[in-house]
Order: sequence, then structure tokens, then C-alpha cells
Amino acid sequence: MDAAATGGGKRPRVAIVGAGFGGLWAARTLANTAFDVVVIDRNNYHTFLPLLYQVAAAELQPEQIAYPVRGIFRRTPNVDFIMAEVRGIDFAGRRLRTDGFEVPYDYLVLAMGSVTAFFGVDGAAEHAFRLKTLEQGIALRNHIMRCFERAAFEPDPVRRQRLLTFAIVGGGSTGVEYGGALAELIRGPIQKDFRAGRSGEARVVLIETRENVLPGYPEKLRRYARDRLRAIGVELRLEARVKKVCPDRLLLAGGTILPTQTVLWTAGVRGHSAYASWGLPVSSQGRIRIEPTLQLREHPEVLVIGDLSFIEGDEHLPLIAPVAVQQGRRAARNIMALAAGEPPSPFVYRDRGSMVTIGRGAAVVRLGRASFSGVVAWLLWLVVHLINLIGFRNRLIVLIHWSFNYFLFERAVRLILPRESSWVRQAQDTDR
Amino acid sequence: MDAAATGGGKRPRVAIVGAGFGGLWAARTLANTAFDVVVIDRNNYHTFLPLLYQVAAAELQPEQIAYPVRGIFRRTPNVDFIMAEVRGIDFAGRRLRTDGFEVPYDYLVLAMGSVTAFFGVDGAAEHAFRLKTLEQGIALRNHIMRCFERAAFEPDPVRRQRLLTFAIVGGGSTGVEYGGALAELIRGPIQKDFRAGRSGEARVVLIETRENVLPGYPEKLRRYARDRLRAIGVELRLEARVKKVCPDRLLLAGGTILPTQTVLWTAGVRGHSAYASWGLPVSSQGRIRIEPTLQLREHPEVLVIGDLSFIEGDEHLPLIAPVAVQQGRRAARNIMALAAGEPPSPFVYRDRGSMVTIGRGAAVVRLGRASFSGVVAWLLWLVVHLINLIGFRNRLIVLIHWSFNYFLFERAVRLILPRESSWVRQAQDTDR
Repeated sequence: MDAAATGGGKRPRVAIVGAGFGGLWAARTLANTAFDVVVIDRNNYHTFLPLLYQVAAAELQPEQIAYPVRGIFRRTPNVDFIMAEVRGIDFAGRRLRTDGFEVPYDYLVLAMGSVTAFFGVDGAAEHAFRLKTLEQGIALRNHIMRCFERAAFEPDPVRRQRLLTFAIVGGGSTGVEYGGALAELIRGPIQKDFRAGRSGEARVVLIETRENVLPGYPEKLRRYARDRLRAIGVELRLEARVKKVCPDRLLLAGGTILPTQTVLWTAGVRGHSAYASWGLPVSSQGRIRIEPTLQLREHPEVLVIGDLSFIEGDEHLPLIAPVAVQQGRRAARNIMALAAGEPPSPFVYRDRGSMVTIGRGAAVVRLGRASFSGVVAWLLWLVVHLINLIGFRNRLIVLIHWSFNYFLFERAVRLILPRESSWVRQAQDTDR
Repeated sequence: MDAAATGGGKRPRVAIVGAGFGGLWAARTLANTAFDVVVIDRNNYHTFLPLLYQVAAAELQPEQIAYPVRGIFRRTPNVDFIMAEVRGIDFAGRRLRTDGFEVPYDYLVLAMGSVTAFFGVDGAAEHAFRLKTLEQGIALRNHIMRCFERAAFEPDPVRRQRLLTFAIVGGGSTGVEYGGALAELIRGPIQKDFRAGRSGEARVVLIETRENVLPGYPEKLRRYARDRLRAIGVELRLEARVKKVCPDRLLLAGGTILPTQTVLWTAGVRGHSAYASWGLPVSSQGRIRIEPTLQLREHPEVLVIGDLSFIEGDEHLPLIAPVAVQQGRRAARNIMALAAGEPPSPFVYRDRGSMVTIGRGAAVVRLGRASFSGVVAWLLWLVVHLINLIGFRNRLIVLIHWSFNYFLFERAVRLILPRESSWVRQAQDTDR
């Protein structure tokens, strides 16, 4: 452990920036090899982002979707962890500049992920909530619970309506899953504790520019999702475009005004704006242009994976965990090839399908050409996510451990969350 | 519910400020009576303070010792909750001023508890950590984990020593229990993940002005506690007085310097300094002088309980949960008496004893004249705390529920924690 203290040494040193899906799978693929691997992240934990929306909907505790990185690599002595914020790259000297010391590398994997993109919509960056990090998820949950507490004693019906209207911008998987979870929070726990829950004053409004939610999914599934969302009480505003976000209302193109103090923006992602200044080839959406082998053209010892990367001519890779995981593996294998003097291989995405829940007991699943929906789809979703969730843990962990022993006593309590600086800034700052 | 919206109405209205032990037990005693009861707290949850030290030692998750107040009173329709910060009292108009609307009352129970007292020690208020609120516990845990992350890559041994020395000021029950828990955190989880844990560089130093820890306990138990603390690796500095707290060191009377970036102050408590401005009779330690019946002399419809209260001639009541609980019950009964035109009764404390753990598997217990220590004492401590922890829950909750279903899915995730404003300020501000 503590490789940085000992320096690179004889063994080739791989630095991996980002402990998301891409970074973790790159590190796991390099576990117990002849490389010294160091994972660097600003947080000391990995966040299981596919379930982040459940934290924001007060369904899961933050600790249940976060894993201390050191815990994940406890049994792999050639993988170390550094909690630091990377500030830049010295390509010539092959060193990372961080907010602490410098980190030397022979091979570098960049896997910092993406941040929320607002496409310059007026007021969005200032007033909309984001859902890309655990802290943002907690901030959104806290805000929503606070809205109910305030509404409980707000005599003015107009103000109460503003407090109890929750707008979600973007009908992609995040928007759909969060809309469903939020509607069920209101119909469930909230109803027991607040008159607002019972009075039906609380509204969840989902705004999508296209004619229906879940673009990219088969028509059949999109129709199912739309009907299901309406059935559990989510108001859909389709073919609607957000013009402006204010602290107390949302303006749609055409002049419609939606009074609300809660706008969640899920309509787009981009690369962090800082990366251009790092001397990286940044695309218009702030993503980094790479070769099919995931390498930088100018610096073949640097590989970029996940949301952050952008393969020329392969623009249509979805920005989802499976792509990041497969690219992480490919990056690790290509680094082994390079070290062995062999040619790296291009990345090929194996699409195993995708799935989205719409509240409990309902989901849509696409498996290659096959696609289905309903309870069976939801059960499949559940199994897949549970397996992946516990997949981080070492061999013999079983579900009961995962949900009981493990969450209650071993892992979660060691998170550094929230970090000490201002909660609002942490949670709202687009550029992480 | 939502009593404030409906105003006092015919039923006499009892406002209870503070959802700690005193406030909650006053409200529970008034549950399902002819009173309209409203509990007011700045947080939407009750904190089980006897286990707060375990959150600060990364043993428990914050959610495991916090209960949403609305959940506790879900089945008692005459008890309502308002999340607000009380700013003052209009005694003549019998109304509470809050950061929101005003809250009318016929009877008022003040149970706001205490804050950390530094006795004017130089630098303590600025640089020492506190352990009186859940946010302070989380901030301390995060800081300690961050110290280990930084030390892992700190080449300079002097700086590393500062990062890995943890000082606790005060050898009362909080200091002893936290010292033991921290020593075991270092010998346990930390050792698995950090070289610092294995190298034995990490130190826990407990500073007490008296000749031994746990003043007020029988000699036998104090000796046991001292020996036990040393056995698990806590350095004791007895008959030592803190002169000054700096960001990077602690100065003791006599000139001893202890290099450390972590000082926890547990050496004293006081009432919030704001209460004097509320027109309350405040003692030198900022506590409120009350009659033996817990009433204010000038305003017999106002009762004060818990750490905050101070009964003339009964100065030596310990500031512990059982006193607050018994005073809460007494306050509620006295309000019923006043409403019925009967005379209120003076508070009489029934001392059922007290207990302190020193790490896992060891504790000291005092029961009236009887006193014992060791594993049996620890098991008793465990049972007593588990019972009280689940005691909040409605009828049929069993332990497995408490530890599994309940924590994982129902209660904890609805906490508004941390509140949105600056984490540091929230956690550090003495006056809550």
C-alpha cells in the first residue's frame, strides 16, 4: 500500500483518475498483475450511480450505494488509493498535479465522468438541482423533505402549491426513474406524515422535449412507460421545452408557467469545463476525443474511458455504466499490451441491453432485439442491480450480509460525506 | 395534524420546544389527552445522544441514532410537529417567535438542551471539535477519516504525527466512551486499510484535570476505567489542564505541547447564550432558573426541563437523559394538573444508576449502592441501550426489524441531514 510514498519503483505504474465504474473496472482488471496501480478520487468512496435516484427519493440511505475505495481493494496489494483532486497533467514529466502532492505515472487512465449540461437555458445552472453525485442526491432529498415541512404550515395556497410541485426536466432514464420514485414517495411515506400527501396537492411534473419519454427505446416500451408514469400520478409535459428556470417557477416555450421551487435537471451531460485547460483534446460537449483503442493520439500512454471519452466516428455509444465498465476492462488490457510491446486493440461495445424502472413493480427491459415490460421486467431489474451492487464485495458476501451486517456496521460509516466545505456549493456546482 | 394551521382552538395548546429526551417524553406523556400538543425543533429528527459517540467513531451510521419526529408521533393525532427555529417568546401574548410564523401556546415547555462550554480556554471555541449534535458527530468522523487519508501519503514524519494524534479533552462519560471507541476504530477497520493503523503511529490522548477519569463514579469503577483505557491503547494525561488550543497543537499547563490537528472538547456544557435575550432567568452557566415544580417563577405556564433547566438548591442533578426523561414526564403531569386547577408537584429524580462503556466488551455500571464492571456490565449497557433505542418505535417492532427493515428502508432515509447551509458552521457553531 501507500505506493506514492515509495514512488513508482521498478514496476510500471498506472494512475487511474476517478473511482466510477470505468476507473474501478480498469483497476480490478489490473489487480494482482505486475503493475503498481493507484486510483485517485476526490471522494474516498465509489458511488453506485444507477441507484442514486433512490437516494434522492429517500428510498435508500446514501451509505447503501457508496463503497469506500480502500475497502474494495483491501485484498489487492498492488492497487492503492489516493484521496485527492487532480488539477492538471504534466504529460512530458508523466506526473499528475493534485491539490496535494504530484503523482507519477507510466500509464494514465482518465475516468472522471460527466457533469450536468444545461445547454445555456436561462437560470438552469443557478436554480436547478442536479443528480450526478451522492451529495447532489442528498441535497435534493433534503430540499424535498423541507418543502413538505414548510408546506405543512403554509396557509397561502399559492405558496403551498409552489412548495409541493416538483418538476423534472428530461424524460430519459434518470428522469423517468426519479419521477416514478418521487410519485411513490408522495403516495407512500409522505402520505402517512403530511396532510399535503393526503390532500393530493403534491404534484410531480416530468418535462420532455420529444413526443414521448425514453428516446432510443422501442415504441412499445415507450408507450408502456408513458402510461405507467401517468398511472402512478406523474404529470407528463411532452413536446415541451424549458425556456427559463427561476427560483419559484419554470417557464416553458409557448409561455406556460409552472410555479415550483424544485426543478431537477436531467436533460444532458458534458465533460468538466476544466479539462480543456489540461491540454486535452476536448469536443464541443466537453468530452475528450480518443482513438478507437481509447488512447489519446498525442499521448498513447494516456487512455480515456466512460462518459468523459468520445470515440471519433462512434458518437452514439450510450453514456451508461456498462460502456464504462467494458471500456475500463479494455483500457486495462491495452495497457498490458503496450507494456508487453504488443499492439492495443480497439474498443468494441457489447450491448447487453438496458432497463429502466417506473416505480416499484414495473420496468421496461430491452435485451438485444427482445423487449418486455411489467413485473417480470422489474424483477429482472432488481436482480441485475442487486447482483451488481454486491458484485463489488469479496467472494462470499450474500444478500442478507449485504443488506444487514454490511451496511449497518462495516462499510457505510466510513464515508467522508459530506466533505467539509459548503454543502450547497458541493451539491450545486455543475463542474463537480 | 397541522395544528398551527387550525390555531389553538378550544383544547388547551401545549408547545414543546426541542425534540430531545425531555421534549419527546413530555409530548409522549401528553399523547392522546385533551391537549393540542406541538413539538418544535430545528431538525426534523430526534437524536439518540447516548450513542452519538459511536457515529463520531464511525461505528454507527447517523441514520441509526436519528428518528424523524413525525414518525414517532404518527399514531398520536393530538401531537403535531413543526420544523422551525425558535427566536424568542412573547410571554404576554403567549406566542413563540420562530424563523417562520408565530406559534401560540397556553402552556410552554422549553427543552432546548445544552451546548459545549469552553470556560474561555484560548482557541478552544475556534479550533476544537464538539460532540453535542449529529452534524458535529459526522463532521468529526469525516475529519478523522480525512486525517488518515492525508497521513497515508505524508512523507514528513512530524506532519504525519500531527495528523495521527487525536486529543480528547475531558474524562467524563463522553470522553471515556469516545476514547475507547476511537482506539478500537484504529485497531480495527483502520488497520486493515492504512499503514498508519498498522505502524502504531496513531495515538488517542485523553486529557483530564482530575486525578482520574469518570468523576462521580465509585473509586473501584474509576480505577477499572483507567486501566481498561490504557489496555486498549488510550494515553491518559491525568491532572493535566488545557491552556490553549491551536489548529496544529494543544498546549497544557506546565508547557507540554501536544502536536495534533484533532481536539475534541467534552469538558463542559452550558445553556445557549441567546436565552438571556429571550427574557429568561439565566444562571451563570447559561442555564434557566426554575422552581422545584419546573415552572418559571414569573410565568407559571412555562416549564423548563433537561440540561437547560436549573433547580435552585438542586444544582447537582446530572445532565443526563434519565433526568430529562423524568422531567419531561413531570412537566406534562404538572401541565395536566394546572389545566385541572390542581397544584403542580415538585420534581423528584429517581436515580436508577448510570453506566459507561470503555470500548467493546467492557463497561462500568452503578446501580444505587451496587457497582460492577467488565463484560457483564457491558452486556447490561448493550441491552439497556438497545431497549431504549427501539423504545421509540411503536408497539410490535422487534430487534431484527429495528436493525434491518427499519433502518434500511423506512426511517433513516427521510432525515434532513445535513441542512443546506455551510457544513463547517453547522458543525462548529457552539451556540447550535
